Amino acid sequence: MATPSLDYGTLFAKNLPAAAQPWGGFPRYNFVGGHNNPDEIPIEELIASSTRVLRREGRSLATYNMESGPLGYTGLRDFLVEKMAHYRGIRASSDEVLITPGSNPGIDLVNEVFLEPGDTVIMELFTYQGSVGRVRKRQVNIVGIPLDDGGMRMDALANALADLRQRGVTPKYIYTIPTVQNPTGTIMSTERRLEMLRLSQEYGVPIFEDECYADLIWEGEWPQAIRALDTSNHVIHIGSFSKSLSPAMRLGYILAPWSVMSRLVACKNDSGTGALGQLIVADFFQNHYEAHMDRLKASLRQKAETLMAALRTHFGAAIEFRVPRGGIFLWVKFPEGVDTMKVVGPALKEGIAFNPGSEWATDPAAARNYLRLCFALPTDALITEGVAKLARVFHQEVGIPA
Amino acid sequence: MATPSLDYGTLFAKNLPAAAQPWGGFPRYNFVGGHNNPDEIPIEELIASSTRVLRREGRSLATYNMESGPLGYTGLRDFLVEKMAHYRGIRASSDEVLITPGSNPGIDLVNEVFLEPGDTVIMELFTYQGSVGRVRKRQVNIVGIPLDDGGMRMDALANALADLRQRGVTPKYIYTIPTVQNPTGTIMSTERRLEMLRLSQEYGVPIFEDECYADLIWEGEWPQAIRALDTSNHVIHIGSFSKSLSPAMRLGYILAPWSVMSRLVACKNDSGTGALGQLIVADFFQNHYEAHMDRLKASLRQKAETLMAALRTHFGAAIEFRVPRGGIFLWVKFPEGVDTMKVVGPALKEGIAFNPGSEWATDPAAARNYLRLCFALPTDALITEGVAKLARVFHQEVGIPA
Repeated sequence: MATPSLDYGTLFAKNLPAAAQPWGGFPRYNFVGGHNNPDEIPIEELIASSTRVLRREGRSLATYNMESGPLGYTGLRDFLVEKMAHYRGIRASSDEVLITPGSNPGIDLVNEVFLEPGDTVIMELFTYQGSVGRVRKRQVNIVGIPLDDGGMRMDALANALADLRQRGVTPKYIYTIPTVQNPTGTIMSTERRLEMLRLSQEYGVPIFEDECYADLIWEGEWPQAIRALDTSNHVIHIGSFSKSLSPAMRLGYILAPWSVMSRLVACKNDSGTGALGQLIVADFFQNHYEAHMDRLKASLRQKAETLMAALRTHFGAAIEFRVPRGGIFLWVKFPEGVDTMKVVGPALKEGIAFNPGSEWATDPAAARNYLRLCFALPTDALITEGVAKLARVFHQEVGIPA
Repeated sequence: MATPSLDYGTLFAKNLPAAAQPWGGFPRYNFVGGHNNPDEIPIEELIASSTRVLRREGRSLATYNMESGPLGYTGLRDFLVEKMAHYRGIRASSDEVLITPGSNPGIDLVNEVFLEPGDTVIMELFTYQGSVGRVRKRQVNIVGIPLDDGGMRMDALANALADLRQRGVTPKYIYTIPTVQNPTGTIMSTERRLEMLRLSQEYGVPIFEDECYADLIWEGEWPQAIRALDTSNHVIHIGSFSKSLSPAMRLGYILAPWSVMSRLVACKNDSGTGALGQLIVADFFQNHYEAHMDRLKASLRQKAETLMAALRTHFGAAIEFRVPRGGIFLWVKFPEGVDTMKVVGPALKEGIAFNPGSEWATDPAAARNYLRLCFALPTDALITEGVAKLARVFHQEVGIPA
């Protein structure tokens, strides 16, 4: 006699997210997800690094955290201190660096330490979906600050802070992606960074600086990180190896003053970040950081050119976008009245995936006529083909291009 | 003029755990933490595996989840399906397997899907500290079931379930470590496993089976997993690579029916488990599982013998312990009235770390006169030396041994 099966529905917690569907594989024209360029995975160098570190430090795999303690592998933290000093102007000690399994778990940790239901945070109006979703899940209010070509507008930030103070609200942090902003691609000037720091000091609100894309500037100046300009302790800074090397490896980091770090470490209850990624990436980047980044950025710039050319060819004057100075995505503006969300389904039927603007904003309505296209993963041929098909879908669904 | 520093204390969420202290390194005589045997990290084989997989699949590192989807790397899930079939008697499909960064995040996911404040779960009275702490953090009640030489007592479980039903409470799960129980080292018989399944069906309560140590039986029979005996969907099963290979790598897994798995996947928002560990471990274990486990178990058995001999020499008849058939720890009983917690501080001053029993129980008072000693990490010489020193500390602090 068959055993009756258990009905789990009655046992689940309330308010769970909707059940996942079985994974169906990547769409053919994949313009979502922050993937990297498969041609630029440095396979032979990674093999050399793994051989070297396993022979040198393999025995440490027998212990939690490889005898480096809960902050993560010492070799990787030492590399990060040097990298942040050289490329971001940041003076820090390796005791202020915590390795996390990607930047998302880093954001989760910061949120766990700071946020409670009913709190308020400030963000760019158009910003990373994952950060918005994480804050909303904690029932925290978001004040979105508009951007222009120079990133978050400081006049609008000042007004928002003054307005919140008048209402008796101290926001828990100002979250910003100042360097290759996601999704707009803007790079904030040093003047604005200094002004943001001044406001942070005036209002006693820390800055949560997300520099996941800062390694990927391929043209023009690199302004120093906000953390580099801070003469005190006002900035919590996070970064990632997902964009500089591999999203699959799940490696990121938090740089924070010890008064915050000691809380982050106390909340990080995952028994450490995976060892093999830390060991291998530390050795690889200690030896090849600059050469690898130069190759990767050249390839990304080439793909960005291909994407922009295809968009100009197939969408013409119907759309606007800013020529990016770095990164892996393009933020494309359609005429007012167009809702790109309506095109998601029809595009997927043609094998094309893109991010509708309304999912990449603190106020969905404000970004309804935008979309985000990631260009690192698809080949030049697939980019060109995909954009041509996407233009046909948009024409059918919303009459644009005409 | 120096910028005044920000006082973060006013910005933190309430009820955070205490701030972490800077990490001070391992104690010399390290009998805590579930570490593995450094001599048994298969360095050359791991190098061969990393070379092979990086050359074969390195390009996939450019994409989140290596194009395997959110359940994790297909190669590792395929290996697990074979391993569980061969060694644990489990018939499962790789679509029911989710790779997690260790078993702790697996426990967190299961708890997130099932538990809300005020809920009740059932556990062994002496059990894994991490599982107890995770449940308590969610303000969930725990009913602890006493154990004997055969693990959790089914008469006591039946009574507890009947009692809860009478009070209108349906516990969310029965958490058990049936195979090399942590900390007691007991192995539950097949008869008891079948009885637990019968009770699970009678009361509509799923079994949450933690088999983190099941690979490490070095003597006698291996009863099949409870999941293998289940003819329906009553068991959620988790395991780990921390004990079979390396805790630092952070690799574990959950096996669950899709009705549960689809909820676990929806809640797993870490953008995937680290790729390098999954790729390298899959290749290594596909080629070397049995040979590696045989060597590892022989070495652990040797260390267990060393530990037991040292305990007999230095503590004599003052203590009792069960000779384990597998695992990495020994559960040592002192006379009633001894509180091992009092010896933790003085022992640490001598460089000796052990787990006091009260931290390894659902009811701390019930395990006050016990302690747990992990023996995989220290060398034979350090085990012998450490136990001799520990006996002197115990003598000084509690007069035992006399």
